[in-house]
Amino acid sequence: MPRLFVPSAVISGDRLTLPAGEAHHATRVLRLREGDEVRVFDGGGREWSGALSMTPPPAVVALREVDAIAEPSVRVTLALALVKGDQMDTAVRDATMLGVAALQPIVTDHVTVPPRAWQSGAALERWRRVAIASAKQCGRAVVPEIAPVRAFADVISASTDTSSAPFMCVEPAAGAALLAMGSAAANRPAAAIIYVGPEGGWSPAEIARARDTGATLISLGPRTLRAESVPAVALTAIWTAWGW
Amino acid sequence: MPRLFVPSAVISGDRLTLPAGEAHHATRVLRLREGDEVRVFDGGGREWSGALSMTPPPAVVALREVDAIAEPSVRVTLALALVKGDQMDTAVRDATMLGVAALQPIVTDHVTVPPRAWQSGAALERWRRVAIASAKQCGRAVVPEIAPVRAFADVISASTDTSSAPFMCVEPAAGAALLAMGSAAANRPAAAIIYVGPEGGWSPAEIARARDTGATLISLGPRTLRAESVPAVALTAIWTAWGW
Repeated sequence: MPRLFVPSAVISGDRLTLPAGEAHHATRVLRLREGDEVRVFDGGGREWSGALSMTPPPAVVALREVDAIAEPSVRVTLALALVKGDQMDTAVRDATMLGVAALQPIVTDHVTVPPRAWQSGAALERWRRVAIASAKQCGRAVVPEIAPVRAFADVISASTDTSSAPFMCVEPAAGAALLAMGSAAANRPAAAIIYVGPEGGWSPAEIARARDTGATLISLGPRTLRAESVPAVALTAIWTAWGW
Repeated sequence: MPRLFVPSAVISGDRLTLPAGEAHHATRVLRLREGDEVRVFDGGGREWSGALSMTPPPAVVALREVDAIAEPSVRVTLALALVKGDQMDTAVRDATMLGVAALQPIVTDHVTVPPRAWQSGAALERWRRVAIASAKQCGRAVVPEIAPVRAFADVISASTDTSSAPFMCVEPAAGAALLAMGSAAANRPAAAIIYVGPEGGWSPAEIARARDTGATLISLGPRTLRAESVPAVALTAIWTAWGW
């Protein structure tokens, strides 16, 4: 079933007005026609079904609210070190598909992406589009919030003020225990922040800083994972342990 | 540490002769020089360290065998439905990095990749190269065996004769229980075969066939995953449950 994204839905009776951009997407990209059944979601967790009406103004008619796919039991923020353009797209797409509530891109000691690649804000807009496209495809009614890029040190400082349990994914060489499934499942937090490093890994100072903050260091198996795969692997390990 | 792949190592004393292709790879692609430290692995689980010697014939000298990264506790075969070219590359790369012992590409009812794309054998050669490259990168000393493409029906018939426990990854809509972590961990088999379908999912007949064969149906969360991501997600869920 094709899914449209309307973040600020204007609903009048059983009719939801489509913004011009999404009406264009429906007819030109998805090649839908008058009367076709569609779903609409608002990115905040609400979803509707109805029929496409292209009589101006374009709308979804015979609207009824439907149950959205349940969100995960733990509110997870992914604090993700910047990686190269298309690797970042993969990471954002996977993180959305695997249920993160929010995404915080971070600059760490070993990030090699130059500031000009993200300082203009165009990159942030791009990641938000990738997250929306991924939410459409995976059936999710929530689009994770993507925050502007910040320094790792600032994010980890701020996270001590929140109730999110911190976890840091480290390279096998860092010698951390594997995510202990049993103990992790027993200690399921209400919210968590997962730090994922760049291709070059974390600096010793960053790992020390995370330890000081009370972060649980987790290693995702003995092999070195490609940076862009780490979000999918880390999130899957966590949902398997905590329940999807 | 750069890693070279020499499947049939010729060792004389503390000297391992490098095949021409791998010597070329070392100097031209990796830009290594005389005396640089390297690792060599044979794809079957053995690994050595030594120094590069480019005096003809090229070799690794001062050779000593080192401990390879441990292989997973369960011998997993991934029976993977064909997906489009670069998605297949991603799946092979992830499966190698996430420890599968063997990979069996399969044709299923909803596979849309045309036979000409894989019948010549060039695709198989390509997947084998992707698996070798992934093993080099992830630090694994084993290169999973990739079998020639077969029909799903033939593979599942043959699998009843083996001691591999069958698992089939199904779409959320198929209504299977999620992989129950506790029970899966309690029932860790010595070997398993994991069936992963194509973008269009499994046909009802295929799911019925898998059930008849005693396969455990597993669903990887409520959201629809991209086909190329399913191997990474399925394998991570399994290792989290069974131990990496």
